[in-house]
Parts: sequence; structure tokens; C-alpha cells
Amino acid sequence: MSNTKWYQRSGNQGDVVISTRIRLARNLQRMPFPAAMTVEQKKAVADQLFEVLLEREGESFSHIRMNTLDELQALSLVERHLISPEFARRGEGEALVLSADESVSIMSCEEDHLRIQVMRSGLDLDGAFQEADCWDTYLDNRLHFAFDERLGYLTQCPSNLGTGMRASLMLHLPALQEKGIVQQLSATVSKLGLTIRGLYGEGSGSKGAIYQLSNQVTLGITEAEAIENLKGIAEQIIKEERHHRQELGETLAAQDRIFRSLGILKHARLLSGKEFMSLISQVRMGVSLQLIEGVTLDQLGALLVDAQAATLSLANGDSPDAAKRDALRAELVRECLKGV
Amino acid sequence: MSNTKWYQRSGNQGDVVISTRIRLARNLQRMPFPAAMTVEQKKAVADQLFEVLLEREGESFSHIRMNTLDELQALSLVERHLISPEFARRGEGEALVLSADESVSIMSCEEDHLRIQVMRSGLDLDGAFQEADCWDTYLDNRLHFAFDERLGYLTQCPSNLGTGMRASLMLHLPALQEKGIVQQLSATVSKLGLTIRGLYGEGSGSKGAIYQLSNQVTLGITEAEAIENLKGIAEQIIKEERHHRQELGETLAAQDRIFRSLGILKHARLLSGKEFMSLISQVRMGVSLQLIEGVTLDQLGALLVDAQAATLSLANGDSPDAAKRDALRAELVRECLKGV
Repeated sequence: MSNTKWYQRSGNQGDVVISTRIRLARNLQRMPFPAAMTVEQKKAVADQLFEVLLEREGESFSHIRMNTLDELQALSLVERHLISPEFARRGEGEALVLSADESVSIMSCEEDHLRIQVMRSGLDLDGAFQEADCWDTYLDNRLHFAFDERLGYLTQCPSNLGTGMRASLMLHLPALQEKGIVQQLSATVSKLGLTIRGLYGEGSGSKGAIYQLSNQVTLGITEAEAIENLKGIAEQIIKEERHHRQELGETLAAQDRIFRSLGILKHARLLSGKEFMSLISQVRMGVSLQLIEGVTLDQLGALLVDAQAATLSLANGDSPDAAKRDALRAELVRECLKGV
Repeated sequence: MSNTKWYQRSGNQGDVVISTRIRLARNLQRMPFPAAMTVEQKKAVADQLFEVLLEREGESFSHIRMNTLDELQALSLVERHLISPEFARRGEGEALVLSADESVSIMSCEEDHLRIQVMRSGLDLDGAFQEADCWDTYLDNRLHFAFDERLGYLTQCPSNLGTGMRASLMLHLPALQEKGIVQQLSATVSKLGLTIRGLYGEGSGSKGAIYQLSNQVTLGITEAEAIENLKGIAEQIIKEERHHRQELGETLAAQDRIFRSLGILKHARLLSGKEFMSLISQVRMGVSLQLIEGVTLDQLGALLVDAQAATLSLANGDSPDAAKRDALRAELVRECLKGV
């Protein structure tokens, strides 16, 4: 199996959709929810999970006890969207299972006994769901999930009852953000059972103009319906973003911003994480508008992960101070963009 | 004679000294000063000047009646340091003589009857003075300058009495400006009979960190003494600037500023004159520190002139609006830096 990560591959509609994520919340029968479990019980769940995965042939997984990780390693998993920020606290008994390409990850004893997550590059709700469903079936057959005819899958938080599924798209919306349209989207999509939020900070605009669009409703709706609903609205947003992007891209002011961002990224010797996010967003838009050549959206996608603070520090040995990290980030970015 | 302008050639100590200027204020005998002259009298002075220059073989001069120029042409002459801003008002009877390489220029009926100016690239006070002196002698023999044994050359403003000479060096002092040292220099040099001022705006620092160092004293001192004095102090300043530049250049923060400036200049689609000055100053320092290769100090010197508003507009046909001009400036700069 190759070591290529899922986020290093290009995806469908990659100009706007960075990635697709399906997450299933599942709990074992006859076992208290994690909030009420002892460490021993949590360890037992992880043991069972590790064991049933060992039986599965042709797949290679990392089995990680969260308390064996240091802070940097855990934060890097958050940056790679593999675990929740809460899980990075590395509680005893908590564990993580990770496929080699990092597209499949299972948190053991986060909010629920299992959180099965499948990630795909670009827009691929059906593909991601099929794979998640396949893991769901495999694990259900061996571990037996708590399921109620009326309430569906039982979850610790009532908001996940039913399908227990959260489908999310990570969207790059620089044009809608710049034109102030993305801020209005929030009210619209919530009426349609969805939620949109800035992935890197709320407020006037998400850092890097990256937003997460997810389904909110899990009860009284099938997985297929939830996915169709999300897909339909995402397609509208993608169309809107492309339209405004095209319009913006024809202005000299936007071209100036795009190329300046490229110029700074290609030459800076120090880059803070915040500045990087804002500049890479402009460059990503420039690539999608074919104003910039010599770097692909996949390369930028990988850079978006690799340039995050903990992941960057980890790749460079130890935990450098902020100034050193800004220098490492600038170096990584220059290397990535040298062909432009 | 080639069309290469003086500012397109590299000069001695060019890392710090952009150019050298010698200006002699001269007036004809038995003729009121310009402030008291009629237009007819002014025209007569220009006629005489044009005539005696025609006699001089092997030299080709442009003879320009200032009122035949449009505003843009006159402003471009100011930007090229060939005339004073006052002279750009293009009063009737006023005239300019200009050598093909623009290193020699003579304003007729500015504040004095004649203002003979010689410019050289880099530090070349002796060379510039010798040439100015040669023109002084040539013109004195034919036009007969007003001279008093006690007061020296008679000038309209008493501050020019004596030698009538102003020797100036245009200095690039980014490190001294950044470290706040250039601001202290003012008091020091004035005690030594010199003056230093920002060439593009005063205040917290000159735009582009370009300063003009000139002699103030013209009475009771010979030209040679004034030049030696200026030269000695300039050498101290050059040494200081180089020392601080080297020190700065070793910091990652300064390297970051230098390379970001380069990145923006190489990629921007819109560049205001003010931003250009500040970025080109950083790049010029980067070239002198050999951090940046592929562009020479002469090319940057020529760019410094060519990217000024009126000169830029003039080279592009007519008088574009500010936004169009910013686009033209960005294009010119990208072209100049494409080899970097």
C-alpha cells in the first residue's frame, strides 16, 4: 500500500470542494456511553476494535493508544482532520485506528464508543458513504451496535440519534467570502437542515476562506436522503462560487491580489500560519482560474495540511519556537511553489 | 552619441551613492536678476545661451523653450532631476539646454540667469565638478558672468554668493533609516556646513530611503574645499550605512522583508508610486547585499526614474488615470525584474 495520503490526491470539483467527510457515530450494546465509562471499560472497547480489524485481510491500520502520543502528535492529527480537538487531550483508554492513507480513521471512546470517519479528496459523498457503510457493516457484524427501531442508532448526544451520520464538505469559498455572500448563506442553509461554518475561525470570514458544510438532521431521514440534500445544496454553492470567482478574476484588482499573494509566498522567509492561510487562499483561487500555472490543486491541498503548526513542527523533528516555525513554513511553501 | 542616459550607467560606490550632482549658479553682467526681468530679456538670455552652445563642436544639445512643453513633459524633467519643481511652471522666456545623455543641463532664467548642472552616476564629485567647471569656463568666456572679488559669483539669493556651487549626493540609506540613525544625522551634518534631506518626502523617513546630502556654505570657501568636506562626510555615512546594512542583512526578519518586496514587485499587477518606492528600496538593499541576483544596481537606478508618474505616463503615450498608471508601473517593474 502506498504512503500517499488521501489529501495528496486531486478530487472531483476540486476547485471548490477540498474534501468530503462521512462520520458515523456508533455505540456498542450493553455498555455505558463513554462519559460514564471507567478507563478499563474504554480500554476494552479499544481492544475489541483492534482485534476485529486485525482479522480484516489486505488492510493495514495503525493502532494508536491516545495516551502514548505527545501533544504535538495529537495536534497534528487534529490538523489532518483525523481526530476532534477534544480527543487531542489524550485521555487514558481512548484510542485511534488509522488507515495508511489516513482516509479511514476510527476514534474509540470519543463522545461515542466509535466514530467511524472516511475522508475523500474533492466532492465524493457517495464514495465516502459507501466506504463508511462498508466499515459500519463489518464492525456491526462483529461488535454489535446499539440500534433502536424507532430512534435508529443510539448515541450519547441526542442530536446524533437516527443515522448517527454527519456528512461534511470542506469548501473553498474565496469569492463568496470576498463579496460578503457566504455570511448570508448560514441562514439559508440552516432552513434546509444544513449548517455552514468557518473551519479556521468565525467572524468576518474564515481564515483561508475555508468552510465546512454539513447536514444537521439525523433523525427521521435516511442516509441517502441526507446525502442527496447536502449534494443538491453544495452544487448550488459551487455554481455560485464559480460564477463570482470568474467575475472577480477578470478584475485587475483581484488579479493583483492573487499574484501578490503568490509573490509573497514564493519569496517570504517568514510566514505566520494566519498569513499563510490568507495568501494560499488567493493562490488557490488563481490556480482554479488558470491565472497561475505550475502547481496543482492537490499540491496546494497537501500544503494546506503540511504547513499547519503541529504537522510542520513534527515533520522537522521537534517543537521549534514560533519564529523558527515561521521560517520552516516559508521554506516549505517556497519549495512547493518553486515550479510556478 | 549614444542615447544611454547617465542614470543607466553604474557608478562608484553605487551601493550607497545613487548619483552626484554639481550645480553652479551664474548670472550675466549688466542685466537684472530673473525676478526683475521682462519676458523679452529672458528670451534674449536663452538666445545667447543657445547660440554659444551651437558653436561648440562635437556636442549635441536639446534647446528647449519651457513654454513649448506640456505639463507631463515638464514633470518628467523634474523626476529626472533635470529641472527644479519651480521651473516646471514653464514661464515664458525660460529655457533649458540638455545634453543627449542628460548629464549636463542648463536652466536659463530660473532663479539665476544660468544654472549649470552636471550629474554623474555613483560618487564622482571630482569628475562632475571638472565637467561643470569646464562648462563654466566656456560660457564665462562668451557670456561674461557677474563676479565680485569679495563676494565671488553674484547670485539672486545671497545664500548662493561666493562659489555659487551646490554639490549634492543622492544617497540610498535604508539601513540607517530603519535603525533611526539617519534622522540624527541632520543635526550632525549641519554643524559641518552640510544639509541632508529626504528626497521624496520628509517626516519619519524618506520614501525609498533616498536622501540628498549637499553643501550649504558657498561663501568664504573654495569649490575644492567644499567638495573635500562633502566627500569626507559622505565617506563616513557610506561606511556607517554599509556596516548597518551588513548587520541587518544577517537577520531573517530583514531577509524576509527584502524577499517579500522582491516577490511583490515581481508579481503585482498594480503598484502605486509610493509602494514602489518602498519596495524597490528593499530590493536595492538586497542586491547590494548580494542576496538578490539577476538585476544590477544600474537597472534599478534606471527603473527608479522610469517608474515615476510623469516619466511613466510620457513613455506610454498620453496621460493615463492613476489606476492605469499603477498597472503600467507594475508591468514595467515585472519586465525589469524578470531575470531575478
